[in-house]
Amino acid sequence: MFPFVAPVRDLRFVLEELLEYRSLDLPGFEEASPDLVEAVLEEAARLAGEVWAPLNASGDRQGCVRREDGGVTLPDGFAEAYQAYAEGGWNGIGVSQALGGQGLPEVVASSVQEMLHGANMALGLCPMLTAGAIEALAHHGSDALKATYLPKLVEGSWTGTMNLTEPQAGSDLSKVRTRAVPEGDHYRLYGQKIFITWGEHDASENIIHLVLARKPDAPEGNKGISLFLVPKYRVEADGSLGERNDVTCASIEHKLGIHGSPTCTLSFGENDGAIGYLVGEEGRGLNHMFTMMNEARHKVGIQGIGVAERACQHAFAYALDRIQGRARGAEATISEHLDVRRMLLSMRARTDALRALALYCAAQLDVARHAADAAERDAAQARVDVLIPVVKAFSTDQAVEIASLGVQVHGGMGFIEETGAAQLLRDARIAPIYEGTNGIQALDLAGRKLSRDGGAALAELIDEVEATAGELRASAELAALGESLAAGAADLRAAMALVLEASRDPQRGADAVQAYATPFLSLAGHVLCAWQMGRAALKARAAQEGGNSEPFYRAKLAAADFALRQWLPVGRANRSVIEAGMQSLVDYQVTLS
Amino acid sequence: MFPFVAPVRDLRFVLEELLEYRSLDLPGFEEASPDLVEAVLEEAARLAGEVWAPLNASGDRQGCVRREDGGVTLPDGFAEAYQAYAEGGWNGIGVSQALGGQGLPEVVASSVQEMLHGANMALGLCPMLTAGAIEALAHHGSDALKATYLPKLVEGSWTGTMNLTEPQAGSDLSKVRTRAVPEGDHYRLYGQKIFITWGEHDASENIIHLVLARKPDAPEGNKGISLFLVPKYRVEADGSLGERNDVTCASIEHKLGIHGSPTCTLSFGENDGAIGYLVGEEGRGLNHMFTMMNEARHKVGIQGIGVAERACQHAFAYALDRIQGRARGAEATISEHLDVRRMLLSMRARTDALRALALYCAAQLDVARHAADAAERDAAQARVDVLIPVVKAFSTDQAVEIASLGVQVHGGMGFIEETGAAQLLRDARIAPIYEGTNGIQALDLAGRKLSRDGGAALAELIDEVEATAGELRASAELAALGESLAAGAADLRAAMALVLEASRDPQRGADAVQAYATPFLSLAGHVLCAWQMGRAALKARAAQEGGNSEPFYRAKLAAADFALRQWLPVGRANRSVIEAGMQSLVDYQVTLS
Repeated sequence: MFPFVAPVRDLRFVLEELLEYRSLDLPGFEEASPDLVEAVLEEAARLAGEVWAPLNASGDRQGCVRREDGGVTLPDGFAEAYQAYAEGGWNGIGVSQALGGQGLPEVVASSVQEMLHGANMALGLCPMLTAGAIEALAHHGSDALKATYLPKLVEGSWTGTMNLTEPQAGSDLSKVRTRAVPEGDHYRLYGQKIFITWGEHDASENIIHLVLARKPDAPEGNKGISLFLVPKYRVEADGSLGERNDVTCASIEHKLGIHGSPTCTLSFGENDGAIGYLVGEEGRGLNHMFTMMNEARHKVGIQGIGVAERACQHAFAYALDRIQGRARGAEATISEHLDVRRMLLSMRARTDALRALALYCAAQLDVARHAADAAERDAAQARVDVLIPVVKAFSTDQAVEIASLGVQVHGGMGFIEETGAAQLLRDARIAPIYEGTNGIQALDLAGRKLSRDGGAALAELIDEVEATAGELRASAELAALGESLAAGAADLRAAMALVLEASRDPQRGADAVQAYATPFLSLAGHVLCAWQMGRAALKARAAQEGGNSEPFYRAKLAAADFALRQWLPVGRANRSVIEAGMQSLVDYQVTLS
Repeated sequence: MFPFVAPVRDLRFVLEELLEYRSLDLPGFEEASPDLVEAVLEEAARLAGEVWAPLNASGDRQGCVRREDGGVTLPDGFAEAYQAYAEGGWNGIGVSQALGGQGLPEVVASSVQEMLHGANMALGLCPMLTAGAIEALAHHGSDALKATYLPKLVEGSWTGTMNLTEPQAGSDLSKVRTRAVPEGDHYRLYGQKIFITWGEHDASENIIHLVLARKPDAPEGNKGISLFLVPKYRVEADGSLGERNDVTCASIEHKLGIHGSPTCTLSFGENDGAIGYLVGEEGRGLNHMFTMMNEARHKVGIQGIGVAERACQHAFAYALDRIQGRARGAEATISEHLDVRRMLLSMRARTDALRALALYCAAQLDVARHAADAAERDAAQARVDVLIPVVKAFSTDQAVEIASLGVQVHGGMGFIEETGAAQLLRDARIAPIYEGTNGIQALDLAGRKLSRDGGAALAELIDEVEATAGELRASAELAALGESLAAGAADLRAAMALVLEASRDPQRGADAVQAYATPFLSLAGHVLCAWQMGRAALKARAAQEGGNSEPFYRAKLAAADFALRQWLPVGRANRSVIEAGMQSLVDYQVTLS
């Protein structure tokens, strides 16, 4: 596997030029200067490139092993690499200072996450889950729970997990059966959870499980579900670790990818019951869990981008090295063949575009949390709500395609595991599935998110897309990009109107949302990503006109041209898909023969 | 892994209704009746479903092992399953009776191949390679070579391989370095070949390697390359097996998929030189190899369809079993959710469409080989030449997407290896790479195949697409499908004109072919597949109007509607991609940072 160099140059371009470091002007970020942010990016790049990335291939090869004693042995070096991360203070960079973190903006935390996932996605999952646990506890935990658990989670000496899925309860969590029986100030939990990421390991002193379960007298369905905190080791009053709790790793999964991430089946209460504590309100477990899931979904989108970036780098390195055939009269590396270059530019343009959109969303998260003005916060939150399903689903679907193209660039070598390209495809393939499948994301966008404001927040985003299209059209060199972007914006607006209208049908509205969700999300993803690349083209052109001859800007213009004129048209076809209606889906009888 | 049921019903639909069994009317197929063909399909389905398919998952898990003695141990049961195939006479069904085969039409042989690849792609590769060796020997071998080797290859007691690739010679075979030194009536070969499929194993008595190599005095480049036959065991004058030849398996590859297929590095002449025999003319090795590669490319397309079919069946079986959430007011299997149904119908519609196009191509192959009239043969061959790169590349690219959708339908279970869906994605991923990467296929179509007749053969196919569009438009129920198909045909015609014009530019023509090849092939694939589904819709409607209420026809109409109105639009976007020009590709400087 080729070495990984974190994409600091492009991250800086997005933060400085596309987002103009606006997050740094928000209340609460007074201590964060551009210089500090740059230093953070450089230091994170070092951790990613030098400590995490070299373990990616070996972690895949070794995988995780469940031991006889119920523990899980991680691949060599993973525990140390995690500890280097925690000791470097990286776990708290995006956590507010009030909770013991460094309180840097989400745009910075997301940039660091992307680097780490690009370096080692399997390892990156561990802090991703911990971040979710911190979020849920900080929002919903009692003061006592927060005092006991948050500091250790924030510093990273304890890690967190999310325990949602049971065999019969996947996308439909109303079917959760794990029981929580009250006993004094705590509960005893009994049941089995599956697909628990980093559910058991020895890289941290303790593991804090957040678990969906129901009390014995709880009603059926969503309203009977509460959220509980179950530590691996019980925590004494003085904060020291006590007895092992009754939660054990029953098995770990043999998966297509992310072999370095232990995916566990956890058994709660096989003996005397696992001691747990209620987090937030009884019966509100799903709501509380969704607090953390929204952020987690953004993080999974970021993860897809990290893997896509690494796939790009891998394919580029191979294509620049591999000599085969001739181009323009001379022996050539395959990067000179325009057919191969199409694959490379397609990978690069899409990765850049996804990154720009995901960080735009992160910047809106910063505004939503920190702006002084309530109306400004609400408007940003409305955008975040629309953008998160797009960032999660579109980034991860595209990441799979980008990683698959990366395999293709390698030719026969791409199919050989030692090359490393195949691992990236295998790893990437989980991201469209977990944290809510991409189908669930699409339903969230086309259903809940559109219907609750009648599409107002998305319409405002489309207005901005059109404004960018107007700026592009006004530039002699970029006018063709503007035409394409304007057409995309018009398609998205028309498709939104169609989906909204269909969804209001009292008989068939729910079916319509189901039928149109995926093409609608794909259309939105293409248009919004193209928008960001349109903005990037304007910035790159301005830099060139200002006399900057850095090759970076030339490459960015080629990527923008490709994104708007060769990638966006494929996405625009989704309007026709929606216009074709849903009758064939309704008519279709799914049978085996 | 769910059981595999070979798709006999749909194969029969394509052979009987879309192709009207026309192959059976050709000279040489007098003995083949529809009844015989149906019996062959049923019997092949039994072999595929009962003997080959049950070994697919275990073969993946066990993989192949190179032994200390240089031999390769296949997964349990593979040798026996291959022998059941050979003893059943399956290896010769498509081989002419003059060569000892059964001389059934290519449409039948291709149907059988699809079933076997769907059952077990890794095992299916063994006879696929043998078929290539038979083809090359039959066309180019001397009478003596044919007498010695063909009967055993046709009956399947010996298997064949294709030895092309060397580390420095992949897509560019002009770089082949393996040496063939003349010695009496034979040669001694020295060199190393990589990626040799089924290069070593014990499932057959002998292995016949067809090897590209150059004589010591041969010129550089393509013209110095000749084709040689190198048996694993030398064959005595009486046909019995003699000494082990000096060709050994140096290693086998650790691959993303097709673990049951041994991919070998073969060393020739590590001791006294591997004895080999010239096949065909000196210096014509590449041409002779391409004789077999053209057919092999069709077979790889068929292989993609086999895996896609199995992915469909797997996803359908899971979706019909998995209860999650509610649909239309009741607890439901996920097959009831229209978003999941979109995935299922997309998989099914595409698989059916790819099958129909690949078998149309096979029927044209039958005409090209067997029609009494020379002009008819030539016209069919011209179509075959255009269709084969499309069948190879489009079927295999789509197969990867279909298998990936199959994983997605399974949700979290899709990522668990034991489920079986992931294996299908891993297996499918090789098909866009081998037998000429899909980029090479696209260059073949947009370059060589279009330029040599100025697009005449493809233009005739587009005429037929338009005729089908006209028939659809004339039907009240299918008019919308006709509109969509007509638009697709117009796009393909316009894109062809663009590519032809650009390719004639003396300075930039070669670059233009490179730049436009992949979107052009994708457009052609979508339109030609949609054409076949348009024809299928007409047949299904006719059956219904004739009073046939078989659910098969209702499903076919839904699949056709989806293919023409929800899949074709995405493919049509490739016209815009081509119209956007190639400047961004030319401008782009591929660099690592």
